[in-house]
Amino acid sequence: MKTVGLIMAGGSGTRFWPLSRKAYPKQALKLIDDREMINLTIDRCAPFIEGEDMYIVTNKEQSDLLRDLTKGRLPEGNIIAEPCARNTAPCILYSAMKLYKKYGDVSMCVLSADHAIGDEKAFRQVLKNGARYAEENDEIVTIGIVPTYPSTGYGYIKKGEEVSFETTIYNVEEFVEKPDEETAKNYISTGDYFWNSGMFIFKASTILESFKKNLPDMYSKMAAIEDALNTDREEAEVERVYPKLDSISVDYGIMEKEEKISVIPGTFGWSDIGTWDSIADVQPKDRDGNVVKGEHVGIDTKGCVIYSTDQVITTIGLEDIVIVSTGDSLLVCRKDRAQDVKKIVDILGEKKDLEKLL
Amino acid sequence: MKTVGLIMAGGSGTRFWPLSRKAYPKQALKLIDDREMINLTIDRCAPFIEGEDMYIVTNKEQSDLLRDLTKGRLPEGNIIAEPCARNTAPCILYSAMKLYKKYGDVSMCVLSADHAIGDEKAFRQVLKNGARYAEENDEIVTIGIVPTYPSTGYGYIKKGEEVSFETTIYNVEEFVEKPDEETAKNYISTGDYFWNSGMFIFKASTILESFKKNLPDMYSKMAAIEDALNTDREEAEVERVYPKLDSISVDYGIMEKEEKISVIPGTFGWSDIGTWDSIADVQPKDRDGNVVKGEHVGIDTKGCVIYSTDQVITTIGLEDIVIVSTGDSLLVCRKDRAQDVKKIVDILGEKKDLEKLL
Repeated sequence: MKTVGLIMAGGSGTRFWPLSRKAYPKQALKLIDDREMINLTIDRCAPFIEGEDMYIVTNKEQSDLLRDLTKGRLPEGNIIAEPCARNTAPCILYSAMKLYKKYGDVSMCVLSADHAIGDEKAFRQVLKNGARYAEENDEIVTIGIVPTYPSTGYGYIKKGEEVSFETTIYNVEEFVEKPDEETAKNYISTGDYFWNSGMFIFKASTILESFKKNLPDMYSKMAAIEDALNTDREEAEVERVYPKLDSISVDYGIMEKEEKISVIPGTFGWSDIGTWDSIADVQPKDRDGNVVKGEHVGIDTKGCVIYSTDQVITTIGLEDIVIVSTGDSLLVCRKDRAQDVKKIVDILGEKKDLEKLL
Repeated sequence: MKTVGLIMAGGSGTRFWPLSRKAYPKQALKLIDDREMINLTIDRCAPFIEGEDMYIVTNKEQSDLLRDLTKGRLPEGNIIAEPCARNTAPCILYSAMKLYKKYGDVSMCVLSADHAIGDEKAFRQVLKNGARYAEENDEIVTIGIVPTYPSTGYGYIKKGEEVSFETTIYNVEEFVEKPDEETAKNYISTGDYFWNSGMFIFKASTILESFKKNLPDMYSKMAAIEDALNTDREEAEVERVYPKLDSISVDYGIMEKEEKISVIPGTFGWSDIGTWDSIADVQPKDRDGNVVKGEHVGIDTKGCVIYSTDQVITTIGLEDIVIVSTGDSLLVCRKDRAQDVKKIVDILGEKKDLEKLL
């Protein structure tokens, strides 16, 4: 069966302000190497999935930017634009319907533009194995990351029985929310838990059936305009229907309810690049453990993330600090507070004279 | 007797980098209010000493800048330019000789452009009292600051017997170097020690006699070109002689050797503005104890010094950090390491591609 990739890339990435801006969201940033996150995500799937079979689902505001950025990598028509934000369930339903209509049944690898992956070959092998299992068993396959430390920043997947297959795959026993530190340590010690990567593999037919069963109202509203998909009428019809769909995540609306769901373990070196401090997990460091992009002169500076587009940054006596300087704006933030960059963005948004910085 | 002010303003103020630059030294910065430090120093002496009687001694490189900055405040001819740096003893000798030749004997108040002073009226009263005592007794008078905390950043003056005068003045028992913390605490507890402000008051005749006695070689070299002072030949003669003078401080060369020396206490609210952290002693603070110049948005940010010429500075979870952003350069520094900004300047000076930032 044909396999396609679907990259969910609708977020704004406010936690990467001041580098990320409304007009320049996280997927357009070069956080890991000299490629934008979206292109990094496309490139790592080949040769298992080539660019012509990669799709991006995003919002209307970002679609032009992403089309420009991915030019030459994937066909222009492979950008799917949601007219408004309705969380991940409608996003996957809309995409699956379009793809099913285009190809007939097709294997879908649902990916995120937020991820750093160390061993791309191993990653592609997991996609391949997962897709074959999903095809043969008509199941939803989630990719579970074998945890390397008791993270409190990720949700977990508890494995059930191992299923009979040529590579290791387990039934999912349950999905659990981000734990506190003690709980996370317990999870790790049992060996029964994976990090929930947010990556899924399924046939279009499988996920459409699951929507029909678990989110019937959403399914029927979209099914009513199926005729218009991939035609000139699509944009108008989707614009009419989409705002009426419930805003609900695919985890909550589908995955946690579904019984035909399994988890394939990944050990390919994975990080969710969600905040400035997470950059430190995937970037080379200087001998004092600093990640530096741009010109830096430091004295007694350790474990910092230093990112500058223009200014020369000089530091004295700092430890575990994030410094990001981008033209009009500067962020200086304790590493363990990098989550709160979002709050800074909220504050700026409330100030008439400063919202131009967003 | 006529009284003149002499502001020693030859330093580069590298500890205020990146705001201070080679072409823009500390005395040209607006560190305290909207006036440059040099003009603040001039203004606070009036009406006791008016601008026409204020002199600045500086180096050749800075003389044009200081002449421009003080235009309208003091006559152009009141800028005395040393051809090369030879520490403070030659600087005072040269100035005293010029002033003596111009006015005959004259009271000189030797001041620094580095100081913040709270009560300017009380300060002028101390100058006035000091000058009268110095005139009547043919003595060198130092201004000793009544300490408000056990500073390890200042030298101290130990008072001796109180002398008979209309206001409180003591003989100097000794000058002591910057102490360690325990010693500083002992000094404070005795009540016998003042901070050495580096401000002196004396008649030109008194200090010239003291140079003759304590630094006879330096004195005779300068006396040999006295005829040329305040004439067209001055610049050439001084340029010839100055490099031959010993580089020595007035504290070491004169003050510590002199017996006819007394100290007048000052309680006018004084700080030596030597480093970025010292700004915090003299500037108003926000409710979290931050000194802010420029636009700042902070979350859990306490006791910081935040200075920006262009960028909006945002901070999360910081305490006692100095942040200075000026166009091409950024400094982020622990407050108690502000002394080491000089080291950053040294490092930049050694890098061919970065020395342009100095």
